[in-house]
Amino acid sequence: MRTTVGIIGAGPAGLLLARLLHRAGIESVVLESRDRAYVERRQRAGILEQGTVDVLRAAGAGERMDREGLRHDGIELRFDRRRHRVDFPGLTGGRSVTVYAQTEVCKDLIALQLEEGGPLLFEAEAEALAVEGAEGDRPRIPFRYQGREDVLECEYAVGCDGFWGVARKAFPGGVSRVFERSYPYAWLGILADVAPSHDELVYARHERGFALLSMRSPAVSRLYLQVPAGTDAGQWGDEEIWDELERRLETDDDWRLERGPITQKSVTPMRSFVHEPMRHGRLFLAGDAAHIVPPTGAKGLNLAAGDVVTLARALVHERETGSPELLDAYSATCLRRVWQAERFSYDMTTLLHRAPDATPFDARLQRARLERIASSRAAETDLAEAYTGFPLA
Amino acid sequence: MRTTVGIIGAGPAGLLLARLLHRAGIESVVLESRDRAYVERRQRAGILEQGTVDVLRAAGAGERMDREGLRHDGIELRFDRRRHRVDFPGLTGGRSVTVYAQTEVCKDLIALQLEEGGPLLFEAEAEALAVEGAEGDRPRIPFRYQGREDVLECEYAVGCDGFWGVARKAFPGGVSRVFERSYPYAWLGILADVAPSHDELVYARHERGFALLSMRSPAVSRLYLQVPAGTDAGQWGDEEIWDELERRLETDDDWRLERGPITQKSVTPMRSFVHEPMRHGRLFLAGDAAHIVPPTGAKGLNLAAGDVVTLARALVHERETGSPELLDAYSATCLRRVWQAERFSYDMTTLLHRAPDATPFDARLQRARLERIASSRAAETDLAEAYTGFPLA
Repeated sequence: MRTTVGIIGAGPAGLLLARLLHRAGIESVVLESRDRAYVERRQRAGILEQGTVDVLRAAGAGERMDREGLRHDGIELRFDRRRHRVDFPGLTGGRSVTVYAQTEVCKDLIALQLEEGGPLLFEAEAEALAVEGAEGDRPRIPFRYQGREDVLECEYAVGCDGFWGVARKAFPGGVSRVFERSYPYAWLGILADVAPSHDELVYARHERGFALLSMRSPAVSRLYLQVPAGTDAGQWGDEEIWDELERRLETDDDWRLERGPITQKSVTPMRSFVHEPMRHGRLFLAGDAAHIVPPTGAKGLNLAAGDVVTLARALVHERETGSPELLDAYSATCLRRVWQAERFSYDMTTLLHRAPDATPFDARLQRARLERIASSRAAETDLAEAYTGFPLA
Repeated sequence: MRTTVGIIGAGPAGLLLARLLHRAGIESVVLESRDRAYVERRQRAGILEQGTVDVLRAAGAGERMDREGLRHDGIELRFDRRRHRVDFPGLTGGRSVTVYAQTEVCKDLIALQLEEGGPLLFEAEAEALAVEGAEGDRPRIPFRYQGREDVLECEYAVGCDGFWGVARKAFPGGVSRVFERSYPYAWLGILADVAPSHDELVYARHERGFALLSMRSPAVSRLYLQVPAGTDAGQWGDEEIWDELERRLETDDDWRLERGPITQKSVTPMRSFVHEPMRHGRLFLAGDAAHIVPPTGAKGLNLAAGDVVTLARALVHERETGSPELLDAYSATCLRRVWQAERFSYDMTTLLHRAPDATPFDARLQRARLERIASSRAAETDLAEAYTGFPLA
């Protein structure tokens, strides 16, 4: 099998890249090791930055998002039983975010790809050390599909196969530098069939731990509780979860948390991770394959979009002008945005979570940070700019 | 001995408080355990916020400051051999800071106090557990002066006797809450008879550690190097200090560090500390007696000024209206500003210093923070607002 761009992974990074390349007339093949149902069901992020929305729309993949996505003009910070709203458009000159789940983005892109785009092979298993010849002119991706061994020969290979993927392993040891941090807590997330108790996301700092009220649709709530790292979701009973959410989200006014049937329960670990560089020869990494952020800043999916927009533009530029300058700049260009997102995600996380080893000094510092955001337009703007998104490229 | 307000400590907090009370017609006595020469010589901070300048001027203590102080409209951040200037007036609507050493502020206030004000007794040693009867109507401060035991009886006692002072110890154990953090590094500071190599302060983040270029006057430089906590200043030879400053302050352009004779060398420990509350009965704490910040944010002296302005206003209010409401609010009012200064000082410190246990991830995060400040007007304004000062009261 031959193509121009071989893409490993049909998550949002791989699918959006294939879509952008297709629109630009560049051939690609997407190899995904899981089946379609799995890809379309796995719960991930749900917040699209303005720039991500614009890219999906420009790629012709925004129709259902525009119909069903919920435009959010702010978030609420909750601390000491107080509520502080951050007004995104007012602080950023009109920017907002859109609540539209990653699963829905993937469904839309898969449908488009199968209908109009190049090959998208599910259950195509890439080997360990799957990318060969990244340093030469024709990288090769051996894979197994419908019981047969095959090889995808391409001009460029792109690893969009996530944190646990194989593409990153093709970087020689002397080239790779890894930066990481783990956190001593995780998120216990639930999906519940109940209208969200607030029309915008609520980020709560509470002495018992962080809580987040979010939503998937006007009828489905998505809520999270900070729990110790390594917690098994099964340890928590449904009523116990609601009780704890109620405690951490409590306010001084008459706001109330509505309960409903919990349809899904899972634990998300928290990790910061960056692999540098994001390119080696003709192999490129995009999205979670290159970097992970804790979910507090809602940056993961948006970073993936930023990477593939940068890469698609560079590939088009190379094709049109013969100049590899944008491809050569790919890693540095992405890493500038990645590190800003890492910084913001780290800051949002440490602003709101209770570390098990936090001292009373740390707790006071956290409160002073929240009070600063609630009282300084500059500090609040800094947060609003970062939340609604760094420029995509 | 009797007075209205008994003040322990003739540092900037105690001296300014006595001055403000004198101008308002309220009697006070200042007890200082050291001799005058010592107080006038000890090197401390050198940056006055706009609000502190205004207060000194309004108190009739600004004449020499206005003549000799250097108005600074910005600072320079230096990292990765790059230079980024933060323009204070442009970002804050006209605010700036003034370089005028704490020793000079003290000299001016001592001269005024001895000339016009109430008693100021040097070498008046306050006992351990010096303040008695803070919970009653007439606190008493026993002290030893010129070989004789004496007692200062007052309506209000104010501990302005610094971090190592005795006043704080009069708070009963069940009342006091202490918040603190120490840092694994310190500042090796020098005074040098050489014109400053830059006309504004330069804060440098370098992989070898933090460096700060500052000044006392157009002819005297004040420079600092991050060194491990517990370093003895004698370990460092003069040329070794200049070599290290040169390395850490290096730039990509033709900027050069001028050397000169080093006239003083000392090591400053780094500590964050807050004692809550700042009032117990008729005993009040102000300045370092209640809180310490690491020097990176230049906040210590300015916090002291904020405390005594708040306290003087509350005492005047009580005298004029009979209402204790401002005195009752003293601790909470000060602590709001104190915690903002603690937060800022902590952030400036961790932004610029190299922690011995810093991971490569931490180093990248630091650089991303500096790049954020250098590229976002909101983030830069947040810093400029905090540096030039939180409202005094």
